[in-house]
Amino acid sequence: MSTYGHDSVRAIKWREDVLNLLDQRLLPSQTEWLVIDSAAGAADAIRTMVVRGAPAIGITAAYGVVLGARRRYTENPSTWRNAIEADLQLLAASRPTAVNLFWALKEMRQAIETFAGDADPVPELLALAHRISEEDIEGNRRMGDFGADLIEGPCAVLTHCNAGALATGGYGTALGVIRSAYARGLIDTVFADETRPWLQGARLTAWELIEDGIPVTLVAEGSASYLMAQGKVKWIIVGADRIAANGDVANKIGTFNLGVIARHHGVKLMVAAPTSTIDLETPTGRDIPIEQRTSDELLTIGGQRIAAAGASAWNPVFDVTPAELVTAIVTERGVIREPNAERVAALMRST
Amino acid sequence: MSTYGHDSVRAIKWREDVLNLLDQRLLPSQTEWLVIDSAAGAADAIRTMVVRGAPAIGITAAYGVVLGARRRYTENPSTWRNAIEADLQLLAASRPTAVNLFWALKEMRQAIETFAGDADPVPELLALAHRISEEDIEGNRRMGDFGADLIEGPCAVLTHCNAGALATGGYGTALGVIRSAYARGLIDTVFADETRPWLQGARLTAWELIEDGIPVTLVAEGSASYLMAQGKVKWIIVGADRIAANGDVANKIGTFNLGVIARHHGVKLMVAAPTSTIDLETPTGRDIPIEQRTSDELLTIGGQRIAAAGASAWNPVFDVTPAELVTAIVTERGVIREPNAERVAALMRST
Repeated sequence: MSTYGHDSVRAIKWREDVLNLLDQRLLPSQTEWLVIDSAAGAADAIRTMVVRGAPAIGITAAYGVVLGARRRYTENPSTWRNAIEADLQLLAASRPTAVNLFWALKEMRQAIETFAGDADPVPELLALAHRISEEDIEGNRRMGDFGADLIEGPCAVLTHCNAGALATGGYGTALGVIRSAYARGLIDTVFADETRPWLQGARLTAWELIEDGIPVTLVAEGSASYLMAQGKVKWIIVGADRIAANGDVANKIGTFNLGVIARHHGVKLMVAAPTSTIDLETPTGRDIPIEQRTSDELLTIGGQRIAAAGASAWNPVFDVTPAELVTAIVTERGVIREPNAERVAALMRST
Repeated sequence: MSTYGHDSVRAIKWREDVLNLLDQRLLPSQTEWLVIDSAAGAADAIRTMVVRGAPAIGITAAYGVVLGARRRYTENPSTWRNAIEADLQLLAASRPTAVNLFWALKEMRQAIETFAGDADPVPELLALAHRISEEDIEGNRRMGDFGADLIEGPCAVLTHCNAGALATGGYGTALGVIRSAYARGLIDTVFADETRPWLQGARLTAWELIEDGIPVTLVAEGSASYLMAQGKVKWIIVGADRIAANGDVANKIGTFNLGVIARHHGVKLMVAAPTSTIDLETPTGRDIPIEQRTSDELLTIGGQRIAAAGASAWNPVFDVTPAELVTAIVTERGVIREPNAERVAALMRST
């Protein structure tokens, strides 16, 4: 049974020939849209976390290439293909961990390379960016069905960070599974980690689920083990920023904790991510670059200093959960149970 | 070798016949002392977390009894022993999890019961409260030595919440071990969990260690598994609010996570607590009441709403780490390795 209700949230819109991004730094207190009209603007929006979440970053980068191509082509229709290289590199440098970014740029680059002569590339590149966005949403819905099929409910689930409509073209990866399973009555309670330091759970996941009529209970990350010991939570459901060829999963810092704790308590771990998140060129999790962000994210809250003067902080914003802690990777093409290199490769060969 | 340097912080002082408490809600941005002159004031200070940490709560309650006795005796020297019962009950109701509170009240009650006639009880009760405070500090120093003896350094350690001078009469339990081990060169790096929701790590532990010249690096609780996977951290060192007869440890929410994660990574878990924290009348951790605090502690930060309207929160502020995850309980009387009921009982029989 397919049910795609509870799905009103969108964070990336192409309107009146420019990119509109819901500013996720201001949610939930303000819903403001930023208008982006250049590749540099798109790169900035990714770097400063106006937009975040691996699939959403990829889609934003694709539209960023469209904006770059339009400007370069207007400046000089015969040299734009060389000139846009700077835009591609700027976009690629915006965040290091999310592989969907590089995947989307590769798709756009291939389209650029097929162009000959001085014809306007914008209509075709825009169509490709739209297709990347729409296929992401369709893929998330299939993923939602595949993921919901794994859940024996009614039960409670715990999610981490925001792998929702806000992190994708729409519907979400982890929250897509939760939307589908909630619609089928398989999930009765959604716990959301607040997710320090950026509070994606408190600010974004809570907002997104409430917008779509799904009740949500916030918890501090410290409560995971006590929560799982109660026995109600049957699945941890998270997204991914990059999945290595062996099934190791890079995701928001704290996911590795949950994998270890879930295993201890006999709770299952589901990673929901499109195949564009799977990077066969990265053999294992050890090869994934982990973004470190400014220590200010820990030393201050809302611009106010909370930690004592003189304290330093260590702020890696992703970690790698080893494949052996993952019960299932759910993609738009199907499910990889107990992932390893062979099973990941088999799914990637399928169509 | 005993070294008790790095020890300037005190949060509880008896000055000019009243109790002075460093207001821990305002640290580190302000260091303000509250003057408490009644048992009700002491109970309020415990309930509202002006003072926190199991041993500090016990000491504050002891001084609260002194203040109550002074007032009751002044009112009526022949009925004060009955009248003070209300103060004892008020103090006992101030926080449910910390057993040192009940232990200190029992000590004070025994002293009250030895009084006959109309003699002024205040000098004797005050001497007992002072002794409880001083013995706490002396015990913490012995505990620091015992704990440091277990550490093969130089290594990094991770601590959670604040089990420091601020949480005790002085020197600290977990931070007492860290002070002693740092002074001996056994610890080169102290990582401190920020400890949501109350941020005891960011606000208190960082401040306390920096005050005493011990460098500290803050981390989000979500980073524990990634941090331990680096291999530098050899010990998790925490305090306790209550230890059951079988060695199960109630401590700040998040400690159970650390126990599970540490075991996964081959890192050791040390619980440093005075024997007054060990409650032989509580058979196992399941019998320890876990305090739930207001969901506002998660839904807001610094008085500002962060979570979306409509979100609820689950906010247990303690959890119970099963004894089998604890490498050693370190007390002022000695060390219980791999605690169980028999070993806990044996230590409690020793003097």
